[in-house]
Amino acid sequence: MKKLINKPEDVVKEELEGIALAYPDLVKVHFEPNFVYRADAPVKGKVAIVSGGGSGHEPMHGGFVGVGMLDAACPGAVFTSPTPDQMLEATKTVDGGAGVLHIVKNYSGDIMNFEMAADMAHGEGIRVLSILIDDDVAVKDSLYTQGRRGTGTTVLSEKICGAAAEKGYDLKRVAALCRKVNINGRCMGMALTSCTVPHVGRPTFELGEDEMEIGIGIHGEPGRLRMKLKSADEITEMLALSVIEDPAYSRTVREWDEAKGEWVDVVLQDPPFKEGDQVLAFVNSMGGTPAIELPIVYRKLHEICEKKGLKIVRNLIGPYITSLEMQGCSITLLKMDDEMIGLWDAPVKTPGLRWGT
Amino acid sequence: MKKLINKPEDVVKEELEGIALAYPDLVKVHFEPNFVYRADAPVKGKVAIVSGGGSGHEPMHGGFVGVGMLDAACPGAVFTSPTPDQMLEATKTVDGGAGVLHIVKNYSGDIMNFEMAADMAHGEGIRVLSILIDDDVAVKDSLYTQGRRGTGTTVLSEKICGAAAEKGYDLKRVAALCRKVNINGRCMGMALTSCTVPHVGRPTFELGEDEMEIGIGIHGEPGRLRMKLKSADEITEMLALSVIEDPAYSRTVREWDEAKGEWVDVVLQDPPFKEGDQVLAFVNSMGGTPAIELPIVYRKLHEICEKKGLKIVRNLIGPYITSLEMQGCSITLLKMDDEMIGLWDAPVKTPGLRWGT
Repeated sequence: MKKLINKPEDVVKEELEGIALAYPDLVKVHFEPNFVYRADAPVKGKVAIVSGGGSGHEPMHGGFVGVGMLDAACPGAVFTSPTPDQMLEATKTVDGGAGVLHIVKNYSGDIMNFEMAADMAHGEGIRVLSILIDDDVAVKDSLYTQGRRGTGTTVLSEKICGAAAEKGYDLKRVAALCRKVNINGRCMGMALTSCTVPHVGRPTFELGEDEMEIGIGIHGEPGRLRMKLKSADEITEMLALSVIEDPAYSRTVREWDEAKGEWVDVVLQDPPFKEGDQVLAFVNSMGGTPAIELPIVYRKLHEICEKKGLKIVRNLIGPYITSLEMQGCSITLLKMDDEMIGLWDAPVKTPGLRWGT
Repeated sequence: MKKLINKPEDVVKEELEGIALAYPDLVKVHFEPNFVYRADAPVKGKVAIVSGGGSGHEPMHGGFVGVGMLDAACPGAVFTSPTPDQMLEATKTVDGGAGVLHIVKNYSGDIMNFEMAADMAHGEGIRVLSILIDDDVAVKDSLYTQGRRGTGTTVLSEKICGAAAEKGYDLKRVAALCRKVNINGRCMGMALTSCTVPHVGRPTFELGEDEMEIGIGIHGEPGRLRMKLKSADEITEMLALSVIEDPAYSRTVREWDEAKGEWVDVVLQDPPFKEGDQVLAFVNSMGGTPAIELPIVYRKLHEICEKKGLKIVRNLIGPYITSLEMQGCSITLLKMDDEMIGLWDAPVKTPGLRWGT
């Protein structure tokens, strides 16, 4: 295993120490339990947004903490859910009195631990709502998930909801917006190579020299199919068409009902993309992909969207939700409306985010 | 070879097509000869800045074209110098009447071709000055270079000089500033893995499973030494101390003398770093390095700078001057003064740049 690390067990701690030293104007870091939070938290009267998940997907989530995006991010060990005490402490630290939104990717461990943290926060009198991101069209039920996994749309939801909170939306409205972003977003990824988790020390999976995995998860969990290597255009077409042609998707998720004071089942339905939709096109690097390759994917994606009658009104191209050094990419399309476009364009100042247009 | 490409010979063309589609508000792309230029070029009365070099180092240089940075960038084939017609056309396209600065990395092919382009531009009545970047302390004379190679300081010079041009500096003053940035900047890199050039199809060099190369060039050209893998702290210390303890470095470079109308020899001397200096610390990913590892390097670099009495006043952490999917990093330190800090903080809007603090 070749990595720029010291001891595998110190990777997250030392990464956080580096972040604290590098960006003191933007963020602070709390250790034990670990979380990154806005340097000016709590922001009185503003809805706070907390996300988190396993480490190894940088810049998500810690790199997205700052003005106009997240108030706090809770990193677990690499590819491992954070623990409830992290989310609870983060929630208490950033609550400015207007409540806290938890943005949770659909992985069983994340859901369980965020739910426990929310319950404890409720017990301490903090309003917490939780929205699940489950946008990955590749597979239904996976190694760590029931239903679809949470992937690229997470990044977009954190930006858009962060801007909304900054603008003064109240908690219910930010949560409703986050739900809208989730049901309007769809993602699918692929891998050319595996990655190696530091404390494991060997590649997560084996791929032949002429093979790739389509529909891979961000932890290297199996995708939809393994096949012979294809060209960038063919790969882009496979991903883009899977995303665009995905039918309406119904499922039941648990959300906190403030009025009832309990978790309730909510039926969500993702509308399919249709001709004339305005979309944000997000070409994401899995981490180890040469930067020169991403515009090649975007070029084909642009052509396909045009052919399908989808108008790309904004884009984001780069490594934003990664799997360590994995090579490959994911494509996320998010149906946009004027409200979302305005929030997308709002200022943001975080360690890890640069914008497309 | 596993890459998100179509035909190896189309990589640069298709990358540029993607860039043109993705960032029409920021840049335009000219094909045959290939260059990326500011969407609003020429900017009347502003000094224009043109850089370029082999592709494969993205986001440098094409990603740095835009308001507050480069006016144009000329990409060669992967790891291959661009041709003089590219620099000439780019120079003519972006000249707003105040002259053009060429920022040239010290590689023999780049120098020769930029010099030919400058001569042709002079012949067409365009004022062109050229500044060489030769900041890499790893080796003197390398596979493609006489003297030191141009590496990390290139990115910093493009940002600082771009801001100066935007602010209204005249050509001589921008050139003098660029020279100052170069003699105040020092860089050294290392690789854990090789990269694969698309049209070659196999790794540029072989490294054993427990080996690394210290002082690597950005084209995979040999470094200072090959050794057994060490920890991030040990690697950071080797790079940082090489940079910090590098003695005064004298050499003769060719620069265009406007008054004489000819190329003249200029003796440059880099002052060594000394206690009390203010520096910008730049931790650069070689492209394939997991993002979680860079703050670990920064953390140690911060400690070393503190111990050496260097005050880090700004930083930049991420993949900015890369070698395709190579894993590894480089460390650049740039001695800063108030003028440079002000220009560093000036607004910038390009496809590929996000800021540290």
